[in-house]
Amino acid sequence: MRFFSDNAAPAHPKVLEAIAAANRLDTAYDGDEWSRRLDGAFSDLFGTEVRAFWVTTGTAANSLALAAFCPPYRAILCHKDAHIEVDEAGAPGFFTGGAKLVLLDGEGAKVTPAAIAEACGAIRNDVHQVQPAAISITNATEYGLVYRASEVAAIGGLARELGLALHMDGARLANAIASTGESLADMTWRSGVDALSFGFVKNGGLSAEALILFRTELADEIAVRRKRAGHLLSKGRFLAAQLLAMLEGDLWLENARASNAAAAALAKAAPARLVYPVEANEVFLKVAPGEAERLRSMGFDFYDWGPGEIRLVMSWNDEGPAIEGLAAAIAGL
Amino acid sequence: MRFFSDNAAPAHPKVLEAIAAANRLDTAYDGDEWSRRLDGAFSDLFGTEVRAFWVTTGTAANSLALAAFCPPYRAILCHKDAHIEVDEAGAPGFFTGGAKLVLLDGEGAKVTPAAIAEACGAIRNDVHQVQPAAISITNATEYGLVYRASEVAAIGGLARELGLALHMDGARLANAIASTGESLADMTWRSGVDALSFGFVKNGGLSAEALILFRTELADEIAVRRKRAGHLLSKGRFLAAQLLAMLEGDLWLENARASNAAAAALAKAAPARLVYPVEANEVFLKVAPGEAERLRSMGFDFYDWGPGEIRLVMSWNDEGPAIEGLAAAIAGL
Amino acid sequence: MRFFSDNAAPAHPKVLEAIAAANRLDTAYDGDEWSRRLDGAFSDLFGTEVRAFWVTTGTAANSLALAAFCPPYRAILCHKDAHIEVDEAGAPGFFTGGAKLVLLDGEGAKVTPAAIAEACGAIRNDVHQVQPAAISITNATEYGLVYRASEVAAIGGLARELGLALHMDGARLANAIASTGESLADMTWRSGVDALSFGFVKNGGLSAEALILFRTELADEIAVRRKRAGHLLSKGRFLAAQLLAMLEGDLWLENARASNAAAAALAKAAPARLVYPVEANEVFLKVAPGEAERLRSMGFDFYDWGPGEIRLVMSWNDEGPAIEGLAAAIAGL
Amino acid sequence: MRFFSDNAAPAHPKVLEAIAAANRLDTAYDGDEWSRRLDGAFSDLFGTEVRAFWVTTGTAANSLALAAFCPPYRAILCHKDAHIEVDEAGAPGFFTGGAKLVLLDGEGAKVTPAAIAEACGAIRNDVHQVQPAAISITNATEYGLVYRASEVAAIGGLARELGLALHMDGARLANAIASTGESLADMTWRSGVDALSFGFVKNGGLSAEALILFRTELADEIAVRRKRAGHLLSKGRFLAAQLLAMLEGDLWLENARASNAAAAALAKAAPARLVYPVEANEVFLKVAPGEAERLRSMGFDFYDWGPGEIRLVMSWNDEGPAIEGLAAAIAGL
Repeated sequence: MRFFSDNAAPAHPKVLEAIAAANRLDTAYDGDEWSRRLDGAFSDLFGTEVRAFWVTTGTAANSLALAAFCPPYRAILCHKDAHIEVDEAGAPGFFTGGAKLVLLDGEGAKVTPAAIAEACGAIRNDVHQVQPAAISITNATEYGLVYRASEVAAIGGLARELGLALHMDGARLANAIASTGESLADMTWRSGVDALSFGFVKNGGLSAEALILFRTELADEIAVRRKRAGHLLSKGRFLAAQLLAMLEGDLWLENARASNAAAAALAKAAPARLVYPVEANEVFLKVAPGEAERLRSMGFDFYDWGPGEIRLVMSWNDEGPAIEGLAAAIAGL
Repeated sequence: MRFFSDNAAPAHPKVLEAIAAANRLDTAYDGDEWSRRLDGAFSDLFGTEVRAFWVTTGTAANSLALAAFCPPYRAILCHKDAHIEVDEAGAPGFFTGGAKLVLLDGEGAKVTPAAIAEACGAIRNDVHQVQPAAISITNATEYGLVYRASEVAAIGGLARELGLALHMDGARLANAIASTGESLADMTWRSGVDALSFGFVKNGGLSAEALILFRTELADEIAVRRKRAGHLLSKGRFLAAQLLAMLEGDLWLENARASNAAAAALAKAAPARLVYPVEANEVFLKVAPGEAERLRSMGFDFYDWGPGEIRLVMSWNDEGPAIEGLAAAIAGL
Repeated sequence: MRFFSDNAAPAHPKVLEAIAAANRLDTAYDGDEWSRRLDGAFSDLFGTEVRAFWVTTGTAANSLALAAFCPPYRAILCHKDAHIEVDEAGAPGFFTGGAKLVLLDGEGAKVTPAAIAEACGAIRNDVHQVQPAAISITNATEYGLVYRASEVAAIGGLARELGLALHMDGARLANAIASTGESLADMTWRSGVDALSFGFVKNGGLSAEALILFRTELADEIAVRRKRAGHLLSKGRFLAAQLLAMLEGDLWLENARASNAAAAALAKAAPARLVYPVEANEVFLKVAPGEAERLRSMGFDFYDWGPGEIRLVMSWNDEGPAIEGLAAAIAGL
Repeated sequence: MRFFSDNAAPAHPKVLEAIAAANRLDTAYDGDEWSRRLDGAFSDLFGTEVRAFWVTTGTAANSLALAAFCPPYRAILCHKDAHIEVDEAGAPGFFTGGAKLVLLDGEGAKVTPAAIAEACGAIRNDVHQVQPAAISITNATEYGLVYRASEVAAIGGLARELGLALHMDGARLANAIASTGESLADMTWRSGVDALSFGFVKNGGLSAEALILFRTELADEIAVRRKRAGHLLSKGRFLAAQLLAMLEGDLWLENARASNAAAAALAKAAPARLVYPVEANEVFLKVAPGEAERLRSMGFDFYDWGPGEIRLVMSWNDEGPAIEGLAAAIAGL
């Protein structure tokens, strides 16, 4: 059983069905009927007018948004363990043309208004120091914690005050929504989020992520940047159809509930080992020397995550028996 | 009937079958079993050791290769009508960090050794003028002409002499191979091509193109650049599986033969209208005022291509009757 | 006698005196008293509120302005022989982060409204083609011709209509002003120029050029970009003092008149050889085989400028006898 | 009396004399006789073959070197208080095209081999994380500490082992040499330094810094990058002449000894207030609330440097009486 990543899981059958159903002649790029339905579908979902762009990776979604928010000579504030800092090969530097990431501390990869205020306060307002332009937060975080809408709103309010744009990396936003029961609207634009990388691939999708722009006036720039970065696929209908399938009947939410439930079940089985509270679909456990190896010898795969810690990520299709087996194995260490 | 672009056509059923067959848990990114088979499969196909990368667009393939060949402060020579110059939103400038495209003239978007020599000869070898680093040619060209292997070899020989890398944009290379009957090896690495953007999407694929590196020592750099540009999909197995399906039983060649045949049939029906000889799957026709509208009113769609000219692109699935109907309509103008 | 370039000439003694006079302790960067006088001095000179930045090269002035006008994904229109295209090592590509130069034809390196309109008209307004953002013209041109204010105004009007910014490379603007007798105001902002690279070094300066912003709202961005490009010298007072010395008593105009007069005298001596009318301080002459060598053997240095042509550039300190000697030598060929 | 920065001080009279002496017609750019003497003069000074480039700022020198060492997709390790990180407006990001700075801790802005090893050890060697390419250290540091040659050699050895280039920001290298009495050769190339930004402007120069390349094979690239960044001045002779004047009779060393001596005298007067040992020409003092204001009211100017600390920088021309006055004022607080 592999618990390396929710990226390793298969795609949901409905996503494949949608791809098959889209396999007919239509206009190239994003002029097809599926792509043209995206703005409306996501506007409905978020309860406000948005512009929605399909892309094939969260890295692209994140960096396209950040490049529209931050000129080459300014900075983006993010957590020091943020995916954009540690796992995207420097993509923000590439897409922005050399903007800087200012790294913040914070428990469980969560950014706080205090950390933002301190970092901005330490920057002299002159031409020698790089001035901030945007904040990026990840919900759920890289350690499986979630921001409540009120926490996002606190950050959003400060961002507005400081004249900074706010981006949310929502590679696992579905899990955060499933976890908090809060609305997508409250979690994003009502709390000051200007652009959202809305993840679907980790959540049962195949190859389509969505970049949601709440500041719709930037849509033309994003469209050009997407093309220029080689991210305007010529048969875009196959991406748009995936996203529409994920929205239909709230499949995105159903899948996230399933992976969250799997993580909760696992957490319940090993409460004393938890490095972080389990709020989404990731479980970080403390292990004694040799324990990781023993689990692996029993057929469970996962990543080591620093000394004495392992990470297990649950997927939309991890079902009861598999999780029970894993829970039992951990209990029996 | 739409003849806008081979991008508008559906994907071949075998490609969808391959996607479905790959829909199981495997390692993320390109660590899965399908992705790991690519180097071998393409090395077999080309008869030499290559490194093969899946990407989702020709734009990405082209620019990743060019960025590896050309530092920011040098130039790439290409035809003034090359796709990289006129249809990729300046992607080479983005990926290279500001390298320059030096534009060449040439019939039917074909680059000649003479044009290359003249352009390079006009560049003073000093720090004030941008020095060339690479040449990019498109086969089949943007006007549906093909380079024979011997023509590529003449360019490749000059490139070597001038110390320039040679890139081939092969968005429709399959059509060029089907047209000439020459081998992939002769058409590429044996003629001095250092990297190839090997197109599949226009030829019955869904979302996977291949970047083929003959200079394998650049593979690590390309791998990093691909990630950094947001082009390392997390479920890469769905791309690799598409490419493998296209190679199996030479489906890529079969599809190209079909679209070439459709174009040839059409060309035969209107020899006096041809703007260029029809050597691949594109047909450019001269039309008198009003004729384009009449064709459209009969249900045929296509692009105008400059004053008095239209472009019709044939696809892998354009069958006899449809082409006969179009041919008859044109004959009847 | 060297007529390679007005860059080869010495600096005017008053410029050196100004440097010596500025050699005392003051605030670093551009906080010193000389730098703080620049905005006012140039605003007076142009008869409107401007922001003036010292820089050490025309290349820096040009590219800083262009980067503020043109985002990475758009284009700058300029003549195909413009200095920014052929003699600045691709600096605009570097400073803009990969923007494209769209090259225009035109006699004597002059850009016409018709050429601009045609180039813009040929660009499809979609995400695949790079959209224009700015125009750059050079006055006096690279071939020593001058734009009259009315010609600039025609371009400026079209720029406004098309939504494009207008930049003037005024490396030899002083010569154009001396030649036309028109005012700086008419030649620049009243005719729609948004930023001007105002050259002084070729005109008797030592190391200070000025970037003049008529769109003053971009001043903060330019200030940051100047620093970021390493162009904010720590003892800026030595640059500002040079510029102030050039303005004092209209030294800039006096010097330009002298070099123009030298060129005119030479032109008068060889009217049949002129490649272009001599309107500023550059003289392009047709020479028969062997004639360039004979001139060189007599001690005159200059550049060949294409087959059968030579370029001679006059400087602020080229005095009567020297020019008479050269004129006699040419007459005697 | 201003002790803001050694940038505020005047230039040494010999530098101005050299400028005046260079004020005659010569070849433009760096083809003049002074510029052509630089490689030889600095090769003699360092006792090995180097390539020497004049530039006008340390920022340009630093970033040109770093861009040659670090591709856009890799990283440069430096201290978190390094000038390239906190005081150059993100210039390394601009010149490299988006490379990352990895920030290290260390007392007094000094980098240690242990910190480098730890940072590199924490980077997974895969395409997701940005791999290091270079190290940059500052000598004397931003807090006025100096690296001994043996310390540099320890870093240089580790750099070699890790495959990293080593750059030294020597804005105040003269002070470090004056302080340690060690040789330039030992402090740089013999200890593994690949490129050096050799500062002169803070040390009595006017506008010329030197970029010294010990890896001479990169000289052509640096020359192009310098031009492309707008840093190839057209009358380069005025920069080269400054550098030659600074080398003559070891004026650079004499000036550094003077400013070091001034700092030492001041340190001696207030040993209990020192934040760092005074090893070069900078003095950081602890002050009680109100003390900074009292010093300022007595006519001394300087920067606050964090809460309860002030920075005073001594210059080549700060003479005994002035320092004695300052020392007395501090003693009397």
